[in-house]
Order: sequence, then structure tokens, then C-alpha cells
Amino acid sequence: MNFLEEKIIKDGTVLNNDILRVDSFINQQIDCNIMKKISKDFAMHFKNLKINKVVTIESSGISPALLTAIELNVPLVIFKKQQSKILNSNFYQTSVKSFTKDSTYDLVVSKDFIKDDDNILIIDDFLANGEAVSGAIRLIKNTKASISGIGILIEKSFQPGRKKLEDQGFNIYSIARIESLENNTIKFSEK
Amino acid sequence: MNFLEEKIIKDGTVLNNDILRVDSFINQQIDCNIMKKISKDFAMHFKNLKINKVVTIESSGISPALLTAIELNVPLVIFKKQQSKILNSNFYQTSVKSFTKDSTYDLVVSKDFIKDDDNILIIDDFLANGEAVSGAIRLIKNTKASISGIGILIEKSFQPGRKKLEDQGFNIYSIARIESLENNTIKFSEK
Repeated sequence: MNFLEEKIIKDGTVLNNDILRVDSFINQQIDCNIMKKISKDFAMHFKNLKINKVVTIESSGISPALLTAIELNVPLVIFKKQQSKILNSNFYQTSVKSFTKDSTYDLVVSKDFIKDDDNILIIDDFLANGEAVSGAIRLIKNTKASISGIGILIEKSFQPGRKKLEDQGFNIYSIARIESLENNTIKFSEK
Repeated sequence: MNFLEEKIIKDGTVLNNDILRVDSFINQQIDCNIMKKISKDFAMHFKNLKINKVVTIESSGISPALLTAIELNVPLVIFKKQQSKILNSNFYQTSVKSFTKDSTYDLVVSKDFIKDDDNILIIDDFLANGEAVSGAIRLIKNTKASISGIGILIEKSFQPGRKKLEDQGFNIYSIARIESLENNTIKFSEK
């Protein structure tokens, strides 16, 4: 097991067959040492891809994405979630369905912050159905920017997100890959 | 002028007499070098107060608060905003009115993450009417935890937030204090 898998076993909580809670070190309370290790792992993995911008989705991705951006010495751009549909021609926006929360939100970013010559690394905390990352990809595809990598802290490999993104040819790296949460037991994928 | 005031003059935009936009380096796109300077400034200012936890409010406070927590080598706790009023006995929660957005939200944190013996530094991006920070204080006051400092990136000193918090005896440190945005001109307070 790697450092994140060990931490998940120690401090994560299986809520049911689909949901793993990591509120005590990733989502509500942040363990800074784990976040630093995560960001160094991402930076090492993606370092040769000439990334010039890290993108994340508000708000649980911000902490790991910020530290990864610092490691790579590039800016971070945060795609914001908004409830109301305020059309604004200065923004790219797309509608995203959250299966986990059974709700829909608009994901938005100012046109100023994604440029045709950007080479982007997307960082997010969880990959489950892939809806949030797919929304981010749709926003970026309004431009000619490249997406050279997708870095995920925790992938629920038994849900369809990874396959959907791989089928589109994306380069995905997940630090912890969970094969199953059944029987209240966290089982990681063999790598 | 200090480093943040210089950056605000260079890249901030005055929208009207009340609103300064800093989307290009604080809110949507993050300038990692400015964020590192901000966190070092906070850590230096508050270093002798034996802070054991940094608290911030989702989501624009997360980046500076995370880096400050790393500088101080303590955990970060993020108070979450939620739209719907889901009462949950495992959470402290309070209603907050946002004047800027003319909306109301619930601020929540799990009871697991604020303890009676905590000595807390609150970090947020803006201080205007003080509603968000006051909400965070109300949540913390459900416990016997101490609040030893409040660190703000940009204070709009012409709005009532600072005075409200000072009148309650809080130790507030704002890196940039704006006296006025009138006539499309950013005027900083003399310190």
C-alpha cells in the first residue's frame, strides 16, 4: 500500500458500498503532511509533460491542486460551482449533474483564465462517475488548450468515471484506486 | 505599499465603490507566489500565539489558509457553505447572510474538528461586513476553543466588519487595508 492507501485504511470511513468518507484529512479537515505528499507525487508523475496550468473544481480539489501547482511552479485556476444559471458572455459554463449529491450545478470559469496555448493538468479529490472532471473538460474544450493529465486522489474504480475518461484518451493517474467498499471493507486495486 | 497592495494596484479591478475584483490572482486564478508570500506574512505575524489549528470558510479562503497552516505546521479545518438546511446533530451550523451576493447560506462544520482545547487562527480572503467571519466565530463558540487571531488578505476598511470584530476584542491582522474605492481609485489606509 502507498502512503494515501495507508491513510485511508487508518482514517477513512466506509459509509456504504458506494461512499467513503475522508472528512478528517481531505475534505473538511486537511492533514497538511498528507497533502504535501500527494502534491509531490502528482508533480513527480506529471513533471515531464510541460504543464503550464493546474485546473481544479471547487472546492475539495483546491488544496491538493494548489500544492501541485506550487510544486510545478505554475498558476492554479479554480472552476467555480454556481447554483443559479446566470448567463455571462465573459464565462465558459456548463451544467454538471452530481450523482453523489443528486443535484445539478453550473461549472464556470472566466474566459480570461484558459487560453489556447495552455497545457493543463486537472486535479480533483475523487473520481466516481466522472461528471465533475467531464464538466471541466467541456469548459476547456471551448478553447484549443491541451489537457495533458488528470490527477485524482481517490478513484472508485468500480464506478464508470475512469473508463469514460480513458475511452476519450485521457492520461489519468489516481494515487489510491478502490476496487470495492463492499462488506464495510476497503479493497484497493492491484496496480 | 506592501507586496499585496502593489499586486492589487497592478492586477485588481475596481468594479464600483464597493467591489474590488481580484479574480486573476486570488479568487479564480491563483498566483502561487503571492499566496506563498501571504502565508509567510500571516505565519510571521501570528507565530508566537501557539496556534494549533487554522480555520477558513469555503472556498476563496482555502488557498491562503492551507499555506498558512503548512507554515505553522498545524491542520486546516474548512467550514463548508451549504444551501439547504439539513439539520444534523453531528455538525455545528449557523445561518450567514452574504451582503455581497444578497443571499443566505448555512455554514457548517463537523463537531469532530473543533475541540475545547483548540487555539484557532481564522483566515479569510476578504473582510467587508464581517458576516462570514462572524458566522465562523459563532460556530467555534459552540465549544470552549480560543480564537487567538483573524488574518485577512484584503480588508475594506470603509465597511463595518473590522469595527464589529474589534469591538468584540478580536486580534485582526489584514495585509491590505482599503480605505476607499471611490472615483475608480484604490486608496489604502495609512498604517
